[in-house]
Amino acid sequence: MMFETATATLDWLGVIVFTVAGALVASRKEMDFVGFAVLGTVTGVGGGTLRDLLLGLPVFWTQRPAYLLACLVVSLAVFFVAHIPQSRYRYLVRLDALGLALFAVAGAEKALEAGASALVAVVMGVVTATFGGLLRDLLGGDSPKILSREIYASAAGVGAATFVFLTLLEAPRELALGVGFLFALLLRGASLRFEWTLPRYRPRPGVPYN
Amino acid sequence: MMFETATATLDWLGVIVFTVAGALVASRKEMDFVGFAVLGTVTGVGGGTLRDLLLGLPVFWTQRPAYLLACLVVSLAVFFVAHIPQSRYRYLVRLDALGLALFAVAGAEKALEAGASALVAVVMGVVTATFGGLLRDLLGGDSPKILSREIYASAAGVGAATFVFLTLLEAPRELALGVGFLFALLLRGASLRFEWTLPRYRPRPGVPYN
Amino acid sequence: MMFETATATLDWLGVIVFTVAGALVASRKEMDFVGFAVLGTVTGVGGGTLRDLLLGLPVFWTQRPAYLLACLVVSLAVFFVAHIPQSRYRYLVRLDALGLALFAVAGAEKALEAGASALVAVVMGVVTATFGGLLRDLLGGDSPKILSREIYASAAGVGAATFVFLTLLEAPRELALGVGFLFALLLRGASLRFEWTLPRYRPRPGVPYN
Repeated sequence: MMFETATATLDWLGVIVFTVAGALVASRKEMDFVGFAVLGTVTGVGGGTLRDLLLGLPVFWTQRPAYLLACLVVSLAVFFVAHIPQSRYRYLVRLDALGLALFAVAGAEKALEAGASALVAVVMGVVTATFGGLLRDLLGGDSPKILSREIYASAAGVGAATFVFLTLLEAPRELALGVGFLFALLLRGASLRFEWTLPRYRPRPGVPYN
Repeated sequence: MMFETATATLDWLGVIVFTVAGALVASRKEMDFVGFAVLGTVTGVGGGTLRDLLLGLPVFWTQRPAYLLACLVVSLAVFFVAHIPQSRYRYLVRLDALGLALFAVAGAEKALEAGASALVAVVMGVVTATFGGLLRDLLGGDSPKILSREIYASAAGVGAATFVFLTLLEAPRELALGVGFLFALLLRGASLRFEWTLPRYRPRPGVPYN
Repeated sequence: MMFETATATLDWLGVIVFTVAGALVASRKEMDFVGFAVLGTVTGVGGGTLRDLLLGLPVFWTQRPAYLLACLVVSLAVFFVAHIPQSRYRYLVRLDALGLALFAVAGAEKALEAGASALVAVVMGVVTATFGGLLRDLLGGDSPKILSREIYASAAGVGAATFVFLTLLEAPRELALGVGFLFALLLRGASLRFEWTLPRYRPRPGVPYN
C-alpha cells in the first residue's frame, strides 16, 4: 500500500515536472498552445512510455488518462504564466534535474517489479529519465543533452544503480528510493553548479578526424 | 460487418494517401527508389504503428502484409509519375490534409474498440494522424509540421474529439466517423486556405530569451 | 540446437559489430565515455529492439542482460583503443557493412520464427539492419545513410529476401542464412568499392522544386 503510493507519487511528480520543462522549451520557441501541449506531454510521458514498451507492460497513461489530462492542464498553465519568472532558463534546468532524479528511481523500480535483472533495471532508470528530454530536444531542434559533456545520463545511472543496489541488500523500499533519488539529484546539481564534466575522448595528435 | 468495412476502408485510404505524400517528399529531395519506398512506407504506416504499439495491439501491417505491398507499389508508381502534376507541392499539402483527417477518426475508433477511455482515444487519433508525417519530416530534414503555427495537430484533435463525442452519444458509427472526418478536413483545409493560426506565446517585452 | 546456435551467433556478432561502429562515431565526435556507451548501445541493440516491438515479442536484451553488458564493455574498450587504427572511418564503414549483413538475415529469421509472412520477414530484416544505424545518425547529427544514394537498405533487403526465398524452398537453415548474409555483404561491399548508386528521381527540366 505504502509501496504503491511511493511509486505512484514519484511517477506523478516526474510527469508534472517534465511537462513544465517541456512547456518552458515551447515558450522559449514562442509556440502556440498546441505546441506547448505537444512538447509538454511528450516530455512528460515519453520516458515512461518507452520504459513500458521495452518491458512489455501496458503503457501507463493508456490505463490512467488522468496523466494525459494533467499534462494538458499543466501545459496550458505554463502558456499563461511562463512570462512571470525572471529566468525561465534557470527554472527549466532545475526542473529537468528534478525530473531526471525522480524518473531514474521510478523507472528502475518499475523494471524490478516487472522481474527485470539488476542491469536491465538500471538501464530502464536511465531510459525513463532521459528519453522524454531527448524527444523534447529532437522536436525542439536542440542538440541532445544526453550526448553533451554534462553529467546527465550518468547522474540518472548513479541514482538508479544506488536504488537497485540498496534493494538487492534488502533495504526498505522508501529508503532505497530516497537515497537513489538524492544521489541522482545531488550529482546532477553539483555538476551544474561546479560545471563538472567527464573526460572526453582525445584523438591522436595530428590525426584528428580520420 | 458494415462496421468492419468502414474502419478498414479508412485505414486503407489513409495508408495510401500518406504513402503518396511521403513519396512526393522523396521526389522533391530527388532520392532514388529506395528512398521513395522508405519515406513512403514510413509515412504511410508510421502513425498506425505507434498507435498499435501504445495500445498493446498487434501492429496492423505485421498481420496483413498487403499494406506493405501497397506502400511499395504506390511508392514505385510515384517514382514514375511524380513529374506529371504542375505543382507537386500543392498535391502534397492536400493529400497530407486528407490523410490527417482519415487517420484522426480511424485512430480514435481503433482505440475505442480496444477499450480506451475517451481522452486516450482522442490522443490516439492525434498520434495516428500526425506521427507518420512527423517521421517523414524528421527523416527528410524538414521542421516538424506538428510544431509549426499551422492548425495541424489541432485539426486532428477536433476531428477525433467530434467522433468520440458522437459515439458517446450513441450516434451511428458511420455518421460519427463521417462527421469527425469532415470536421478535421474542413478545419485543416480552411486553415490552409485562410492561413489561420493559433495565438503564439509572447514573452514579456524586453525579456525575449531568458 | 544447431539452429538456436546459428541465430544466437548472428545476433551476438551483429550487436558487437554495430556497438563498435556506434562507439567509433562517438570517438569521431570526441564524446565522453557516457556518449560512447549511449551511441554504442543504441546502435548495437536499436534494430533488434524495434524488430521485437513490431513483432510483439519480448525485447531480446530485457531477457538476456548479457547483451547490455557486452555493449558497455565494448564501448569502454573502443574509448581506449580507438586511436590505434590509422583510419577509424574505414573501419567504421566496413563494420557497418558487416553488421548490416548480419542483422538482415538475423532479423528476417526471427520474423519467420515468429510466424510472419515472407514480405514482413524481409521488411523486418531491413528494419533490424538499418534502425540502429539510423538512430546513430540521428543522435550523432549525421544525415541518415538509409536515405542516401548509396546501396544500403537495398543491400539489406536483397540479403533478407535471399534468405527468405531459400527458406521457402526448404533449403537448410544454415545455407540460407549464409547465402543471404554473403549476398548482403558482397552487394554492400561492391557498392562501396565501385561507388554504385541507384538512379535517382529526376524532375522535369525547368521545373525543379515545385
